[in-house]
Amino acid sequence: MNRKSFASDNNSGIHPVILAAIEDANTSHTIAYGDDVFTRTAEQKFKQHFGNAAEVFFVFNGTAANVLCLQAATKPYNAIICSELAHINVDECGAPERFTGCKLLTCPTTDGKITVNEIAKHLHGTGSQHHVQPKIISISQPTELGTVYSPDEINNIAQFAHANNLLLHVDGARLANAAAALNMEFKKFTADAGVDILSFGGTKNGMMYGEAVVLLKPELSENFMYIRKQAMQLASKMRFVSAQFIAYLNNNQCIKTACHSNKMAKLLEAKIKEIKQIKITQKVESNAVFALIPPKICNDLQKEYFFYLWDEKNCEARWMCSFDTNEDDINTFVETIKKLIKNI
Amino acid sequence: MNRKSFASDNNSGIHPVILAAIEDANTSHTIAYGDDVFTRTAEQKFKQHFGNAAEVFFVFNGTAANVLCLQAATKPYNAIICSELAHINVDECGAPERFTGCKLLTCPTTDGKITVNEIAKHLHGTGSQHHVQPKIISISQPTELGTVYSPDEINNIAQFAHANNLLLHVDGARLANAAAALNMEFKKFTADAGVDILSFGGTKNGMMYGEAVVLLKPELSENFMYIRKQAMQLASKMRFVSAQFIAYLNNNQCIKTACHSNKMAKLLEAKIKEIKQIKITQKVESNAVFALIPPKICNDLQKEYFFYLWDEKNCEARWMCSFDTNEDDINTFVETIKKLIKNI
Amino acid sequence: MNRKSFASDNNSGIHPVILAAIEDANTSHTIAYGDDVFTRTAEQKFKQHFGNAAEVFFVFNGTAANVLCLQAATKPYNAIICSELAHINVDECGAPERFTGCKLLTCPTTDGKITVNEIAKHLHGTGSQHHVQPKIISISQPTELGTVYSPDEINNIAQFAHANNLLLHVDGARLANAAAALNMEFKKFTADAGVDILSFGGTKNGMMYGEAVVLLKPELSENFMYIRKQAMQLASKMRFVSAQFIAYLNNNQCIKTACHSNKMAKLLEAKIKEIKQIKITQKVESNAVFALIPPKICNDLQKEYFFYLWDEKNCEARWMCSFDTNEDDINTFVETIKKLIKNI
Amino acid sequence: MNRKSFASDNNSGIHPVILAAIEDANTSHTIAYGDDVFTRTAEQKFKQHFGNAAEVFFVFNGTAANVLCLQAATKPYNAIICSELAHINVDECGAPERFTGCKLLTCPTTDGKITVNEIAKHLHGTGSQHHVQPKIISISQPTELGTVYSPDEINNIAQFAHANNLLLHVDGARLANAAAALNMEFKKFTADAGVDILSFGGTKNGMMYGEAVVLLKPELSENFMYIRKQAMQLASKMRFVSAQFIAYLNNNQCIKTACHSNKMAKLLEAKIKEIKQIKITQKVESNAVFALIPPKICNDLQKEYFFYLWDEKNCEARWMCSFDTNEDDINTFVETIKKLIKNI
Repeated sequence: MNRKSFASDNNSGIHPVILAAIEDANTSHTIAYGDDVFTRTAEQKFKQHFGNAAEVFFVFNGTAANVLCLQAATKPYNAIICSELAHINVDECGAPERFTGCKLLTCPTTDGKITVNEIAKHLHGTGSQHHVQPKIISISQPTELGTVYSPDEINNIAQFAHANNLLLHVDGARLANAAAALNMEFKKFTADAGVDILSFGGTKNGMMYGEAVVLLKPELSENFMYIRKQAMQLASKMRFVSAQFIAYLNNNQCIKTACHSNKMAKLLEAKIKEIKQIKITQKVESNAVFALIPPKICNDLQKEYFFYLWDEKNCEARWMCSFDTNEDDINTFVETIKKLIKNI
Repeated sequence: MNRKSFASDNNSGIHPVILAAIEDANTSHTIAYGDDVFTRTAEQKFKQHFGNAAEVFFVFNGTAANVLCLQAATKPYNAIICSELAHINVDECGAPERFTGCKLLTCPTTDGKITVNEIAKHLHGTGSQHHVQPKIISISQPTELGTVYSPDEINNIAQFAHANNLLLHVDGARLANAAAALNMEFKKFTADAGVDILSFGGTKNGMMYGEAVVLLKPELSENFMYIRKQAMQLASKMRFVSAQFIAYLNNNQCIKTACHSNKMAKLLEAKIKEIKQIKITQKVESNAVFALIPPKICNDLQKEYFFYLWDEKNCEARWMCSFDTNEDDINTFVETIKKLIKNI
Repeated sequence: MNRKSFASDNNSGIHPVILAAIEDANTSHTIAYGDDVFTRTAEQKFKQHFGNAAEVFFVFNGTAANVLCLQAATKPYNAIICSELAHINVDECGAPERFTGCKLLTCPTTDGKITVNEIAKHLHGTGSQHHVQPKIISISQPTELGTVYSPDEINNIAQFAHANNLLLHVDGARLANAAAALNMEFKKFTADAGVDILSFGGTKNGMMYGEAVVLLKPELSENFMYIRKQAMQLASKMRFVSAQFIAYLNNNQCIKTACHSNKMAKLLEAKIKEIKQIKITQKVESNAVFALIPPKICNDLQKEYFFYLWDEKNCEARWMCSFDTNEDDINTFVETIKKLIKNI
Repeated sequence: MNRKSFASDNNSGIHPVILAAIEDANTSHTIAYGDDVFTRTAEQKFKQHFGNAAEVFFVFNGTAANVLCLQAATKPYNAIICSELAHINVDECGAPERFTGCKLLTCPTTDGKITVNEIAKHLHGTGSQHHVQPKIISISQPTELGTVYSPDEINNIAQFAHANNLLLHVDGARLANAAAALNMEFKKFTADAGVDILSFGGTKNGMMYGEAVVLLKPELSENFMYIRKQAMQLASKMRFVSAQFIAYLNNNQCIKTACHSNKMAKLLEAKIKEIKQIKITQKVESNAVFALIPPKICNDLQKEYFFYLWDEKNCEARWMCSFDTNEDDINTFVETIKKLIKNI
């Protein structure tokens, strides 16, 4: 397949700015395991973007970032409250339960967001030895359905969390897309909104690999280095993760690419809306478009373009735009769809 | 520190051939999570080097490769037999116990190798419900002390293992250095010698990141993809790990660089031997040199060159040579040592 | 509280027949950890009741029996499918996830039973490395709502399970009550109905402590003794568990007491039905009665009788009858309720 | 085997005083899971014996008591320092590693005791992310070799522990035998000597089942009830464990029986010493006698008396005396030995 895919933003490659940063960091010897100047610089970058309290630890991927965030905050008899659609609940092969020992308690959702009302239902067993003890709420920003929490919505959950002795975690695998959508600094809708702990990703937005655990409460970071090492997530040549993050956070790099992929999703949405046989099912607020497509074209379209059906039974597709998706890609894709529909 | 370090072979950067492979793989979109042509090609490369039975799965780092090898082979009531100096026993922050649930049973060693005689002592509890049940032996090749098992030594352990219903795992974080030292194809001293399961590393020999789990018995690989994902070790942009391994195994690339670092270690050994105040403590068979140095120069030398003391009490240093260590680096290093000794 | 409680059948004490068996087993010395004649005899008793394939291992309590059954059948990347109300899902403080590493996937239920239709919805991720892999279905017999599966209902689930490469587990904490309700030998609705693995309890029906793991497929029992020991469930003076089970299974002892408590529940149901302000919410098929009571009497009734509200919001009570509940106990309890309602 | 065994003190049955306490507690209904008057009374008994700070939680057996003590004190990246002969290291099928996730670091020993000198060797990796972080020292009192730590020896280890940010755990499966040997109240050589956390057993000294976790630092007990439940160690009919412990701690009951079994061991030692072909290998300080016996009588003696060889190669036997061992038992046993030796 030479064509660019709408399957996932991680089907794209490395952004040239990121690759250049890796090449620049490839100079002779550097102490391994993070005791290096690239890592120190990257840590400062994170403090600039998330506040001075932010302690950052790099890991290899998004599943690890999520699981280690949860591990830092819990004991095995705790429970983690999240959306039924949360990546941690559905797409991580049980890694959160396996590594933390905790149970996940899920809230129903239609738009990917969860509400205080649904979260509260999971607190009735608090204090009883027979029941797992909720300790942390995890939300995704943007959600798995491409929607974006407002800072007020986040703050609302954070206040509820703290009033109930819970922490708030954000799975920010695509946090730059949320920042772009909100047109807002990271800090405003994370640290300032009451978020305690954050997975910050870049791989879906032009990085090669690497994810950041951002701990916003000092007590969470005290022993985190041991958690990371024991979780098999300590990179020896860490400078190459750090160098990527420096470039990613410099000069608005990550916001620029996220703005672009968000914009491409809006363009895709606009063009798809012209096709009356297709129904957009979720608000397009970041770089995802969800749509019900005619079952009759589904197979043929998937032959030409690799993508996932979010809901197989109803033929609901998820299309993701990437940093390198361009207008031509979208035009060609939409034309292909139109042609297939015409031939039904 | 501008100087090249003798602290570890992972203080070096990315070999140009490997970096070029990454750059070449950075072309538009590719399906994520390993369902790509780079990964298929890399898998074939491993079959060429380790035999057709070899099933390979890429993970992020050496700790993960070791732990996942052990996880694939054990149940939590099993025990893992290894050297008391084994990386899995000493340097992985308890990840093997944490993830597999197993106990590690250790054998004493003076040269990094373990013997059937010592392994056998751990089998007395077999069949008793009060005791952990040994299931796998793990050796390192080269060992943590830089020594290299002969194929016969490995085969001897493998035969003992199989006769006792045990498997044999090799931690091959530096396996290319062993191949270079033995002047022998990988297969001869792994698959052909009875090894069942192998961690194959490249990061200490010019790769950027990524490690391979090589499963030589079909039943071990059946469900390995779930083990990897749940262990947070599934890379989304896996093509960049696969591309590195293709380049690493192509054209004798990994053997060339390993030969070079081994050769540099022999050179370092030869020059150090001229200094009567220093005593080489282990056979130099791969890219490591272990030496007792005068306590009086230790601090000053470490100020000029970052390296680890293997045995702090006795001032025993471990010096590692890398793919990019050159004769000048060694000369300068030895001169520094001589100067410091003179000034005692 | 001198009165007998309707809170739980484990608020009752030891049945005299069971206590006598303990006393009789208290004769001088016996080899510990199950290598004794009492345990051999008890094992034969289980083969009589569940078929010759049945291998039985005693543990301390019901949570352990359930968790060890699930552990014997799974690897950590598996999933366990059960009712949302299942004891393993709600009342074991996350022990199943903690010990097995598996995720629990739940089915909605209104009567405590689960259906093939709901179970099937959890199989869409089978074969994908991102998702947990279902391996076992767990049902409770009787259910947590006191209802009883027919042998056909169980067989239906078992056939679906086996057709999909799944196993079927039964949480039989009160299995004798189901046998009494069905008027049927244990084997007919367990082994003969396709059940693979069973937790068999007696503590809620007159035993002091101890629960049995009954493995109906030989491959499940091969290494079970190590699982039990590592799970901290191997009793040293096991003869006292075994002796209880011998007495429990002898002379229809457990059926007699279960028939009695079932009958008391029917009596309670009949008398409660006379009170129009109270609504029975579940079929009374074993020894439980669920009922919506007027919120105004709730506190006062709980002051006189300790019991649990199954649904606090709706004032739905769960009343359990025990082997020692008698008609007077029920009359007094119902009179108390009537008096409180009168005074509203 | 009608004869009383010297294999283990858990081959004996239930002491009549304990059995009577169970019978007395068998009165009608009591709230389950420890919310009962027997458990409250037992807790007060423990405060009398171990000080007001002592919080006690009952579990089913000694392995569980040890593992849960360690779990309460550690995180998975911690290490537990103990004797190479420790029950937790050798005889619990890896349960400590499995449940806590921690590595066990062992100290060599010839008399079962460990010393500050050996413990200290395990602290060199403290603060390094590559290494497990020691958090707790565990000693057994009496040791697995029947020797008894003096209060000063314990205090010495406790002071070292606390100076190094470690806790001190005592495996007191036979703590009453130590108290009898030292002729000292429990508190003097536990809480007063700096012990932080204690497994307190009774099953080897006349109880039927049940073990106590005694937490001497308030912060350890805060969430212990969830740890216990998740570890499958919460008894429903807990009154029968509590009633046993009340009787065990009342009227010096446990000290009387421990004094007796200690005295029987001294008698056995005295009589064995008369046989010149047998060599006592450990000081007889509690209820164990270790002895090298002539290999030629070993099999025949084991045919007449079931017992374990501590060291099979050297024919070193472990003989344990129980609360019900009497002088006749010892005389008969010694006569049997003498007869066998004569016939060599």
